[in-house]
Amino acid sequence: MKQSKTVAYLGPAGTYSQLALLNHFGNDINQCPCLSIDEVFYATEQRLADAGIVPVENSTEGSVNNTQDLLMDSMLCIVGEEVVPIEHNLLVPVDAPTMKIHAIASHGQSLAQCRRWINSHYPKAELIECVSNAEAASRVDAARGVAAIAGSLAARTYQLAIKMKGIQDQMHNSTRFLVLGHIPAMATGSDKTTIIVYTENRPGALFKVLEPFENLRISLTKIDSRPSKKEAWEYVFFIDFEGHQQDINIAELFERLADCTQQVKVLGSYPVYSGQQ
Amino acid sequence: MKQSKTVAYLGPAGTYSQLALLNHFGNDINQCPCLSIDEVFYATEQRLADAGIVPVENSTEGSVNNTQDLLMDSMLCIVGEEVVPIEHNLLVPVDAPTMKIHAIASHGQSLAQCRRWINSHYPKAELIECVSNAEAASRVDAARGVAAIAGSLAARTYQLAIKMKGIQDQMHNSTRFLVLGHIPAMATGSDKTTIIVYTENRPGALFKVLEPFENLRISLTKIDSRPSKKEAWEYVFFIDFEGHQQDINIAELFERLADCTQQVKVLGSYPVYSGQQ
Repeated sequence: MKQSKTVAYLGPAGTYSQLALLNHFGNDINQCPCLSIDEVFYATEQRLADAGIVPVENSTEGSVNNTQDLLMDSMLCIVGEEVVPIEHNLLVPVDAPTMKIHAIASHGQSLAQCRRWINSHYPKAELIECVSNAEAASRVDAARGVAAIAGSLAARTYQLAIKMKGIQDQMHNSTRFLVLGHIPAMATGSDKTTIIVYTENRPGALFKVLEPFENLRISLTKIDSRPSKKEAWEYVFFIDFEGHQQDINIAELFERLADCTQQVKVLGSYPVYSGQQ
Repeated sequence: MKQSKTVAYLGPAGTYSQLALLNHFGNDINQCPCLSIDEVFYATEQRLADAGIVPVENSTEGSVNNTQDLLMDSMLCIVGEEVVPIEHNLLVPVDAPTMKIHAIASHGQSLAQCRRWINSHYPKAELIECVSNAEAASRVDAARGVAAIAGSLAARTYQLAIKMKGIQDQMHNSTRFLVLGHIPAMATGSDKTTIIVYTENRPGALFKVLEPFENLRISLTKIDSRPSKKEAWEYVFFIDFEGHQQDINIAELFERLADCTQQVKVLGSYPVYSGQQ
């Protein structure tokens, strides 16, 4: 079944997203690289792809806002998650390993994740923000002294040399990806659910939302606020918690949440990442 | 007194940060433009500037992660806030108003704030992420077909024409800035306090943190989670609430928080933005 599956991801080839895709689905799929996270959603929604995989959170830099905002409006459901350890490297041309570095290209989040290392090693380098680490790798240029920060998959893809390995400021740096699809995932006994909660904009609203979790002893694994996009300075909450929407206590949770929120959007229940697929 | 004050801000001239600076302090100050938010903190900490002003949150795009992360480690206190309405414009050369647009330069957050407008008007334009809108304005180029997205202050500063006004996706789009200084602000009767809370990484920890706010009827105006930077997938909470740390009930709040948190860092109490300075 997996052989004919098409999966959309944030391309081009060589990104951490492609690594997440390969780790999650293996090699026997059709890869559909997209130019942006928006396009991954679009390709999956339009059934040009059977599934999509998007970054949602980095353990150092926090949530990927664009993914969260797209989830607010999408009809897709979250059917899985994947965690990829991030190891950033300074990449230079194979034939000019000692070139003088005037500029460093990378994705904004990657530049942020190496902020201290860059400040101490190349404080004067111009920083070139790119739409992906792979695009940054493709911009490496001996004549102009442009190096890139990217993973080893990008080094292989663009045939670059790794001048310095593991330059991210936090050694335990991982990115969490969500797998998007059309058919809700079945309960496995070790599941997680993601919801978006719209509350009334009044004091104590969040406390009221958390009360049923506390009383039903349901573990929150993450909570995050985002602008509601409806009114300025109004927020919605993204909540991840343990359990599957088919579980009895989660059904009870939803009943109680209905009494103290404006709206709850269930993005999906899916197996907790275990390190093995 | 204000005449000799030096204030650091995220430059160059023409940014929304400069507008926030002018709105908050008026014209009788020495302006100290910095290359990055990090530098604004540094200049203020090293007393090269008496105060600094940094963006902390946009009403559409959410929190400015870099500012929040720098606040975690800084000894500065928040002494004020300023809110600037954001109106993005498409800027082109004065002498080539009808040029064909191949690329659009802007800060990543501004590109995100105009995502829908760009997709419907210039779906094929290359997006050039810049470190500031002002830098984007300086890159406008008739020969290469590069336009920029920036505010009207940048148009004036770089002598560009406004081809299209108010292109942001959300009409009610504002950015909130924090004023950083060395001496805590006195209570005015209409104040806000910002704290960072470190909790134990266990179920119900956030609920325990919110309980004293609920019981003392203290209004949270904002709550946000960020990676703790100590352990992967561990979070700290940024909380804004009404009141001043000199108030009796806020002192009581801090006592109760001490019992249910690992650590509370008070970033400052400061007058609520009223629209008038």
